[in-house]
Amino acid sequence: MTLIRTHTCGELNRDNTGETAILNGWVDTRRDLGGVIFIDLRDRYGKTQVVFSPQDDKQAHQLADQLRSEYVIGVEGKVKERDPENVNPNMSTGQIELRVTSLQIYSKADTPPFEIVDDVKTNEDLRLKHRYLDLRRPVMQRNMLLRSAIYRQTRDYFHKHDFAEVETPFLMRSTPEGARDYLVPSRVNPGKFYALPQSPQTYKQILMVSGMDRYFQIVKCFRDEDLRADRQPEFTQIDVEMSFVDEEGIYSMGEGLMQSILSGVMGADVEAPFPRMTYEEAMKTYGTDKPDTRFDMKFVDFSEIVRFSEFRVFSKTVAEGGAVIGFVVPGKGDLGRGVLDRLTKRTRDEIGAGGLIYIKNNEEEVYSSVSKFVSDEMTADMVSHSGADKGDLILILAGPTKTVYKQLGDLRLMIAEEYDMIDTSRYRLLWVTDFPLLEYDEEDGRYYAMHHPFTSPHQDDMDKLESDPSKVRARAYDLVMNGSEIGGGSIRIHNSEVQSRMFKALGIGPEEAQQKFGFLLDAFRYGAPPHGGIALGLDRVAMLLAGAKSLREVIAFPKNQRAVSLMDNCPDVVDEGQLEELHIRLAPGTGDR
Amino acid sequence: MTLIRTHTCGELNRDNTGETAILNGWVDTRRDLGGVIFIDLRDRYGKTQVVFSPQDDKQAHQLADQLRSEYVIGVEGKVKERDPENVNPNMSTGQIELRVTSLQIYSKADTPPFEIVDDVKTNEDLRLKHRYLDLRRPVMQRNMLLRSAIYRQTRDYFHKHDFAEVETPFLMRSTPEGARDYLVPSRVNPGKFYALPQSPQTYKQILMVSGMDRYFQIVKCFRDEDLRADRQPEFTQIDVEMSFVDEEGIYSMGEGLMQSILSGVMGADVEAPFPRMTYEEAMKTYGTDKPDTRFDMKFVDFSEIVRFSEFRVFSKTVAEGGAVIGFVVPGKGDLGRGVLDRLTKRTRDEIGAGGLIYIKNNEEEVYSSVSKFVSDEMTADMVSHSGADKGDLILILAGPTKTVYKQLGDLRLMIAEEYDMIDTSRYRLLWVTDFPLLEYDEEDGRYYAMHHPFTSPHQDDMDKLESDPSKVRARAYDLVMNGSEIGGGSIRIHNSEVQSRMFKALGIGPEEAQQKFGFLLDAFRYGAPPHGGIALGLDRVAMLLAGAKSLREVIAFPKNQRAVSLMDNCPDVVDEGQLEELHIRLAPGTGDR
Repeated sequence: MTLIRTHTCGELNRDNTGETAILNGWVDTRRDLGGVIFIDLRDRYGKTQVVFSPQDDKQAHQLADQLRSEYVIGVEGKVKERDPENVNPNMSTGQIELRVTSLQIYSKADTPPFEIVDDVKTNEDLRLKHRYLDLRRPVMQRNMLLRSAIYRQTRDYFHKHDFAEVETPFLMRSTPEGARDYLVPSRVNPGKFYALPQSPQTYKQILMVSGMDRYFQIVKCFRDEDLRADRQPEFTQIDVEMSFVDEEGIYSMGEGLMQSILSGVMGADVEAPFPRMTYEEAMKTYGTDKPDTRFDMKFVDFSEIVRFSEFRVFSKTVAEGGAVIGFVVPGKGDLGRGVLDRLTKRTRDEIGAGGLIYIKNNEEEVYSSVSKFVSDEMTADMVSHSGADKGDLILILAGPTKTVYKQLGDLRLMIAEEYDMIDTSRYRLLWVTDFPLLEYDEEDGRYYAMHHPFTSPHQDDMDKLESDPSKVRARAYDLVMNGSEIGGGSIRIHNSEVQSRMFKALGIGPEEAQQKFGFLLDAFRYGAPPHGGIALGLDRVAMLLAGAKSLREVIAFPKNQRAVSLMDNCPDVVDEGQLEELHIRLAPGTGDR
Repeated sequence: MTLIRTHTCGELNRDNTGETAILNGWVDTRRDLGGVIFIDLRDRYGKTQVVFSPQDDKQAHQLADQLRSEYVIGVEGKVKERDPENVNPNMSTGQIELRVTSLQIYSKADTPPFEIVDDVKTNEDLRLKHRYLDLRRPVMQRNMLLRSAIYRQTRDYFHKHDFAEVETPFLMRSTPEGARDYLVPSRVNPGKFYALPQSPQTYKQILMVSGMDRYFQIVKCFRDEDLRADRQPEFTQIDVEMSFVDEEGIYSMGEGLMQSILSGVMGADVEAPFPRMTYEEAMKTYGTDKPDTRFDMKFVDFSEIVRFSEFRVFSKTVAEGGAVIGFVVPGKGDLGRGVLDRLTKRTRDEIGAGGLIYIKNNEEEVYSSVSKFVSDEMTADMVSHSGADKGDLILILAGPTKTVYKQLGDLRLMIAEEYDMIDTSRYRLLWVTDFPLLEYDEEDGRYYAMHHPFTSPHQDDMDKLESDPSKVRARAYDLVMNGSEIGGGSIRIHNSEVQSRMFKALGIGPEEAQQKFGFLLDAFRYGAPPHGGIALGLDRVAMLLAGAKSLREVIAFPKNQRAVSLMDNCPDVVDEGQLEELHIRLAPGTGDR
């Protein structure tokens, strides 16, 4: 290899005119014009037009005839200003070209199975199989570099604020409370297994007990769950823990972090402190614990107004403890019957809500879709209660409270998207606070921790831990950006007695607790500081900032929905001998061995 | 929790006199003096003397009586300058104390099983079991912060130089070539397994094929090997790969990185470029491929001089193709018989070399330990050839060449340590280059890649790949610091034909190669750039900079030599149901279930 680059393909400009330069890169496009060969040479930094003419060098010109898309080459030549009519203002190097005097072909290339362009026309499986080609597409290069910039800003922020970056183990103890663990059989300890971390939760708390004071880590975590579109078996977490803080300490750290990422990576300013909203308020106002607050359309509760309506759908719902709620869609009072019918159908098909009710609050007429059953007076009351202006549309659903919140929340998002009401240039962040500590699982007949078993109950609710567990609020919080949960955390329990009460509330007996988490309970007996933390989903943040639709667009080598990597075809069968060494065998009838 | 700190325990000084401050931390020591309680309060940042006197606050003073070592507390009080006779110049806060007006006890603490001091007197198992206490010791806090500083400097360096930080998968394909893989059974794909990465080698090469140009990552790697004192099942690597570079590009990057780490973390300057030495030269001069060049004592080969000696140990060794080599120990010609006898014994017991021969080149006499068998003339020739000055000692071993290099290399280190010849304040780095490409394994009757199967052969030796494989030099290099290998890498093969020849030389057939590494060979068919890289052992670097004796001193939660974490007792048995879901079972008779 002799032609080592002096410049990248995004670097040369008019100032370099007359210089000799060497470029390395991939053949992006080739045009032949009057016996001259024009190549756009591409690398991570840009493209440069490279010209092979017999006048400049006969041998190079002749060799250049072999060049095809994606060949890797080195070229040496003179930088020449382009004629004014050939200047390309869309390229940073668009004012110059390199007149080649020497060419070296490093690698030839088969014809790629798809074009190396942003707007690729192929299915995702083929992209994943040839990920090395897919990642050459400029949009994927941008996504990877954006992700790299997020790492950088994140770590800069924490190091500047005296956080210690500490690595926690990947081979840890299996503590199946929550999602399923990935297990790793031990060769040296027959019959025993490690687990890959679902999060470094216990370790970071141990670090607080050890006096590390402020910890952070960008770390891979693992959950063996059934994969939805936006889940990956391994995912990346910005993991943080602080000692001697309350919620305010976490909030201001999280706000500083997000400001630093958004400004450093996207050049976007967001104001701090971020708004805060309790879980209860979020559910009542937006029907979700991760409200998208880039647009309005807050919920209005009509239950009290319609409680005694002759319309059974209203009165029966309320009588049975359900709710009649809706929201105002500004300026959409003019939607026609056809459009509203389609909306009703979509509400049923996509959201699962049977009876969408609407009121068009127009100047000339207030039209209710249930006017046959509801008096004009009551409709007028509803309009007035909703705060709708003339020309607005009111959408209403009735049903069991939890269900109707969820459905109306989904409807709100559907409407906002349908009518392009979301300002995608803005970042709206908020804290959702005061989550319930426990969730009752009807099937298992027990409570589960909504966040995790180490979350501190509210001081005020402590006495309900035994008497009325579902009413206990947690000192837990989520960070929400543009309607996505990007992080969550809590102030932790730092007292082994409270921790034991918590385990009891979860139906985890003292023995089981000792077996699973004994080392943490032990640690608490030697002086644990008050502490709390948060974990942010880095993949999610990257996806939102990249404006991508899937996590797979911001992960270099993702798995598909069967947890398979198509590029290297893993997982795969292994040698019998490997299993033997690990003291395991396949269950009878397993696999295609 | 009400007393949130206004300052850390390392922060207050005379400038704060008269201010009200709140501190949080651990009770380090307690002294009672004339009814007044003096506490040294400790956190990660330092210690502050905190004073409870009935004059300042009766209630706080009373409560303070409960305080014991390692209690976690919050105190509010006034900063007061100490009387001149009580100033402690060894503490950054030694000029002041905090006179407490309010005390809150956050956590009590049992008596720790060992003292929280640097010079801890306990066995390592107990330290590992109570790692949360062990990590409170100032030396461990310093080690963790030093490690954190290494991360920071490393990433700063790479980001500044346009490297993209990319995460590679932890759940990858098992390619058992080299060390043993850790396997992870797949639940969704019965009978199939992932492997944890031994290194992201194939992925980083794929990233080069994908045009990422410059990649780095600080990443955990896994090897299921029998654990020696300085190995851990999971370890941390600074992983780097670059496109369009030759060795020079890697060297200057590596030099910049180490300069930046050493100056940023240790305040130490090292000059670049680092010296370079071929593998062959290193072996001949120091008997090792990782020479400690902080001291001299280069090898001298006496074989030619003693070839025809009457002393059979010399002549027979040389006749059989072995070597008689030694080195000069400056100024040690005055060692007495007793000392030299002990040295001979240690050489036998610790290094395994039977017959240490020595010559004392003193003014009054040249004394040879084998003067009975070797003529004075030949001894004089040897002294002259060795370049020894008067007053020097010459140590000599004879034996099969490889063995005697190794033994003499070990002896050289033993002597340097014994006589304190190592300047531990200096960092001496060098590149060892031109490693052999292949090593023949007598037992398996095949060649193995000395670095890994993706390492490029030297262009000049390419034709020996089939005819004389053991003579092929690799484009591989190690980075050595103070006699430890801290990194290694190579220029890679970027051509599928050469890669196939390499696999063939390794006895890996086309089918096996396709099955194991097919995706990489495929990738090479679509335009691979020339590329190369390096991986540095971060744990090792941290250990050297911390001046620690074991990797466990610079890893927060290490495993012991049975790959067990004593703190959380892992690995451990798991539920039968977990195994069932993973379609595996234990081999009959395994474990204590």
